[in-house]
Amino acid sequence: MKILVVNPVVGDQWTEQDRAYLQGVVDPGTEVEVVGLTKGPRSIETFYDEAHAAPDILRVIREKEGEVSAIVVNCFADPAVDAAREITDKPVLGPASTSMSIALHLGAKFSVISILPNTAACVEQQAVKLGLERRLASAIGIDVPVLELEKDPAKTVEAIVRAACTAVERDGAEVIILGCTGMATLAAEVRKKLDVPVIEPAATTVKVAEALVKLGLHHHRGRSYLSPSFDKIVGYDWL
Amino acid sequence: MKILVVNPVVGDQWTEQDRAYLQGVVDPGTEVEVVGLTKGPRSIETFYDEAHAAPDILRVIREKEGEVSAIVVNCFADPAVDAAREITDKPVLGPASTSMSIALHLGAKFSVISILPNTAACVEQQAVKLGLERRLASAIGIDVPVLELEKDPAKTVEAIVRAACTAVERDGAEVIILGCTGMATLAAEVRKKLDVPVIEPAATTVKVAEALVKLGLHHHRGRSYLSPSFDKIVGYDWL
Amino acid sequence: MKILVVNPVVGDQWTEQDRAYLQGVVDPGTEVEVVGLTKGPRSIETFYDEAHAAPDILRVIREKEGEVSAIVVNCFADPAVDAAREITDKPVLGPASTSMSIALHLGAKFSVISILPNTAACVEQQAVKLGLERRLASAIGIDVPVLELEKDPAKTVEAIVRAACTAVERDGAEVIILGCTGMATLAAEVRKKLDVPVIEPAATTVKVAEALVKLGLHHHRGRSYLSPSFDKIVGYDWL
Amino acid sequence: MKILVVNPVVGDQWTEQDRAYLQGVVDPGTEVEVVGLTKGPRSIETFYDEAHAAPDILRVIREKEGEVSAIVVNCFADPAVDAAREITDKPVLGPASTSMSIALHLGAKFSVISILPNTAACVEQQAVKLGLERRLASAIGIDVPVLELEKDPAKTVEAIVRAACTAVERDGAEVIILGCTGMATLAAEVRKKLDVPVIEPAATTVKVAEALVKLGLHHHRGRSYLSPSFDKIVGYDWL
Amino acid sequence: MKILVVNPVVGDQWTEQDRAYLQGVVDPGTEVEVVGLTKGPRSIETFYDEAHAAPDILRVIREKEGEVSAIVVNCFADPAVDAAREITDKPVLGPASTSMSIALHLGAKFSVISILPNTAACVEQQAVKLGLERRLASAIGIDVPVLELEKDPAKTVEAIVRAACTAVERDGAEVIILGCTGMATLAAEVRKKLDVPVIEPAATTVKVAEALVKLGLHHHRGRSYLSPSFDKIVGYDWL
Amino acid sequence: MKILVVNPVVGDQWTEQDRAYLQGVVDPGTEVEVVGLTKGPRSIETFYDEAHAAPDILRVIREKEGEVSAIVVNCFADPAVDAAREITDKPVLGPASTSMSIALHLGAKFSVISILPNTAACVEQQAVKLGLERRLASAIGIDVPVLELEKDPAKTVEAIVRAACTAVERDGAEVIILGCTGMATLAAEVRKKLDVPVIEPAATTVKVAEALVKLGLHHHRGRSYLSPSFDKIVGYDWL
Repeated sequence: MKILVVNPVVGDQWTEQDRAYLQGVVDPGTEVEVVGLTKGPRSIETFYDEAHAAPDILRVIREKEGEVSAIVVNCFADPAVDAAREITDKPVLGPASTSMSIALHLGAKFSVISILPNTAACVEQQAVKLGLERRLASAIGIDVPVLELEKDPAKTVEAIVRAACTAVERDGAEVIILGCTGMATLAAEVRKKLDVPVIEPAATTVKVAEALVKLGLHHHRGRSYLSPSFDKIVGYDWL
Repeated sequence: MKILVVNPVVGDQWTEQDRAYLQGVVDPGTEVEVVGLTKGPRSIETFYDEAHAAPDILRVIREKEGEVSAIVVNCFADPAVDAAREITDKPVLGPASTSMSIALHLGAKFSVISILPNTAACVEQQAVKLGLERRLASAIGIDVPVLELEKDPAKTVEAIVRAACTAVERDGAEVIILGCTGMATLAAEVRKKLDVPVIEPAATTVKVAEALVKLGLHHHRGRSYLSPSFDKIVGYDWL
Repeated sequence: MKILVVNPVVGDQWTEQDRAYLQGVVDPGTEVEVVGLTKGPRSIETFYDEAHAAPDILRVIREKEGEVSAIVVNCFADPAVDAAREITDKPVLGPASTSMSIALHLGAKFSVISILPNTAACVEQQAVKLGLERRLASAIGIDVPVLELEKDPAKTVEAIVRAACTAVERDGAEVIILGCTGMATLAAEVRKKLDVPVIEPAATTVKVAEALVKLGLHHHRGRSYLSPSFDKIVGYDWL
Repeated sequence: MKILVVNPVVGDQWTEQDRAYLQGVVDPGTEVEVVGLTKGPRSIETFYDEAHAAPDILRVIREKEGEVSAIVVNCFADPAVDAAREITDKPVLGPASTSMSIALHLGAKFSVISILPNTAACVEQQAVKLGLERRLASAIGIDVPVLELEKDPAKTVEAIVRAACTAVERDGAEVIILGCTGMATLAAEVRKKLDVPVIEPAATTVKVAEALVKLGLHHHRGRSYLSPSFDKIVGYDWL
Repeated sequence: MKILVVNPVVGDQWTEQDRAYLQGVVDPGTEVEVVGLTKGPRSIETFYDEAHAAPDILRVIREKEGEVSAIVVNCFADPAVDAAREITDKPVLGPASTSMSIALHLGAKFSVISILPNTAACVEQQAVKLGLERRLASAIGIDVPVLELEKDPAKTVEAIVRAACTAVERDGAEVIILGCTGMATLAAEVRKKLDVPVIEPAATTVKVAEALVKLGLHHHRGRSYLSPSFDKIVGYDWL
Repeated sequence: MKILVVNPVVGDQWTEQDRAYLQGVVDPGTEVEVVGLTKGPRSIETFYDEAHAAPDILRVIREKEGEVSAIVVNCFADPAVDAAREITDKPVLGPASTSMSIALHLGAKFSVISILPNTAACVEQQAVKLGLERRLASAIGIDVPVLELEKDPAKTVEAIVRAACTAVERDGAEVIILGCTGMATLAAEVRKKLDVPVIEPAATTVKVAEALVKLGLHHHRGRSYLSPSFDKIVGYDWL
């Protein structure tokens, strides 16, 4: 089994680190391939970034989907996941959706600790889209941009833990979801300091992908997800 | 006042027709400018199409937003509306959102008559995103692709009316929304055959845009809508 | 086009002020006529007040609806709006409903700043009725009765701004709705002190009314709204 | 204990019949007083009717509330119930609210069988207001106006039973609520022909009123329900 | 009329006290019989306790249901109420459900004051099950275990009142529900110190039971509630 | 890794069949142990059955939880799952919850095909408890009791397929969940005849259990899930 992980940003700096991390998470028989973009944003923090990541995410998936068993778009915004399901019969998963669905089994309410202070509205929108808004206790941003998360890891961990404690005590969260796949390397430290379950979305999504493959499950095309006409698209010759 | 209407598809065949139609809808002092895309899909029927329309929609808006008072993205999928709000302080409106919000004042429940038989899931998702799912009676597709809507207008009108009657009688709709801006030219005929209000989304959106401009209202950036860093985007030199 | 604005209170002190204000908001070709009640409350702050305003609101609308294009009941309680839709085919709009529907296009959540400290329950009930409760961040009362709003405008503005800041910072509001049409003259001052959009409901409702008229849209009678039998009403000879 | 039942219509033809029926429902120590209106509609079928019933309902309650222990407004539209709670500290109950609340204990979903074919929207609105829309299976009208319900009782019973069977089989109802207090005399016949529980709203409301009195429970004024200023009301000298 | 009250705990210490209290609540013609368990928990504070109470609750009900008119399971967890409805055609009521349904008539939102600090999640789950979550303002635990509630009544009352004030002022509650039937003897004291209605669930449930009996209402078996095959149960020879 | 699968029924006839089936689903390094009950129902079809299964499910889990990595209660009613989470720190999963959470990634709406015609209310209650009711298209029963599912497999498969087609065509389901773990052996046949994804809950739950173990995730005790006092339970000496 091979799982394609699309890092929906331009740049190779995380490719090998993410591959090694996720390879350590999957079963022995599973291979993880991590691919970045050549056109798109350097990080995804806005709807605008997301819109410019989508075409190249879809290009990568079109190129690779024949060789893999499942596809993960490795960003908590779940960018282009719906569109990707229209061009492949392999399962396509996004970290926000899988994390929130797994959180259902761990406690009554979950909170998401995000990077930017303004993420509450976006995370709530994701929960609403999933149909899970009643299970969302809160979304709290720690005000550290994606590209600075790993600059001072101890400080970032401390900010995450502080926000998580607020979520638990003030908002009644029983589960914490790290709201950025760039927090993966910090998860172990965060877990040591909290006594509620902490979901790291990248690893969680890869494990759900493996489970779906082994169960033989994938989405159906014909209703929410159609099969697009590629020749209707003009001007994307780099695709 | 000038309203920019972005037709989020490649091709000029509708530009003048849409301009003339919408110019007839606005107040005497308002000018309508309709602009199509140079890169993107020929029509929007899938998430994949939508993903490939977004970058060029945003390019057009960046180029034009300084000269206009409000912006309409003229497709019922409301493509790139959230992202567009991040790059301008002018009001940005999508036809699905404005039509559904206006329908609230016309009856207890509305139905959307769409082009494809599979649209129920997508329209329901739009209503959920707006927070209006309880007001949606149903979404019914008539199985006529966008590019064929005007081939046999009488037949298309008949299909719309038949679906609308089902919505009214079976689903309790008191308002009908035409679920594609390509149905604009057919709205007058449809209205003659139904005794419930029929919302034509393109005209409705332009009028709501005018109202917002005159009321001095536009979205705020800093929470749901941030200001993106343009220099973080790589490889879109055609933008 | 002529829009009938019913001030659902007894007394003429606001008639001319409101007319001048709203005449300044509409398009050149639109005339605004403001009419008060001869029987009813001096202001609407309770359900009891509202119940005693309704018959005379409906009398005014019956008398005038033939001569006008649309009707606005100018009070944030939206009094008698449903009943009015049963006696006319002209659009009938209430300020709470129109303001909340317009707020959908300006940000993820809106808050309403009302006059009395106890309004949260009533505003939430209005949002629930519209089907929009998920978009309501909060309702906050400033504890200034209707008839005292304009006594010390600077103080009222300050109270509104303070409540709005709480709504934005504590409750996540991205849009502020002034929850009383008597706050219209204060809106400009409030806007200067806030950087989120501020919806003044009276002006907003009149503009939505104009848009509906120009779009040829009005509610249908036969389902939610029936046509009452006037001769079934006994003892209202003053009607 | 004395319970005031306000028949919110003009005319005495039901007063004694209702009194005898409800006196047979209450406990030995409870007295039922039924009072009609002198100004208002002959029956309530529209929002317009309801608006013209409210002032005289409130007049009766103001006159009588000192002498009674609880108040029932005897119409499924629950007219003026909120306003009535502002002028008395005695419990005030409406038949739709009490019937729906009691239905919660009898099965997963309830349906309401109403008089007019168009009632679905109104009953759904009542359920939404109560916060119970998820428990409502359907509302079905039988197309017999209030004043004709008792003309051919066997035919009315048959129509109610037919609609109830549809509610049970098609919509999954496990409880039937008769959606008009004018159906009280028919309830026994309806029950014989159905094997799901049938709630007759007038009797149910009087029993809930008795229970509230014996439990010493009534609403609080100061938040949803304020105390109105009676001298703010102009022109209702007949009140 | 005889009402069976099952105290779903092992031990007789409350039987006579509860019987005397509830006998004082019912009508003269009603007899209250209180029965405890012989197998089960000494108090119900966890799902585990509840699971071990259920078989003996059902045994008691099977033994007694022929002789009584209605059944109350006297614990705010409403343990085994659904299962009990499968083995009798007499009404079966749980205190949480009846209290929440009665609260609907007393104010816009209710809060539940529970025994343990962790009850918010469980009470919210109960409200969700009833379909009433929108009416729940909050659930607050006072951190006094069931078996210690009556040790220092004045202190317990003070803790309940303090929590209730928080519910009213911070969360907007207009009705307080005591979230444990063991608080019954304290209700009178609590009421003296609060000016919002306070629902004591045991008394409320018994009164609703009486009302259902007098109205001839009980649940139907065949859909949510089936009739179990007793001979399919193995090993419960003590039943 | 060892996963404990509790078959919550008395009798050994499925133990080996289930073990072999689930052992074929897990990863090479995982062992599946299947344990039945000694006291309880022969099958679970009612709330009454469920109540009599719970104590022995909990006994088995207390006895075994020290030796295993995760626990699955192998019945679509998810019996005793909440209580089980109070007595172990190992993940405890129920098939309905896991199936519904996995369905979120496969299409907009799912339907559940159950054994009995009356299951709609119960399945909807499960979806409501999870917070997923908006994603449930329908629940349809095929009227074949658990103990007869495998008597005529071809006929059962046909009934499931017929119900699934109704769910897809009439109710808009894009995913089918088999609503009984006793349908596991039929899943392959059902899948051949449907072109939407079919979730077999037993296998799905075991795979989610494996994923949780590998991710190091389990619920927290202290809020929804407490730690019960075992010595408070009286009379269950067989435990």
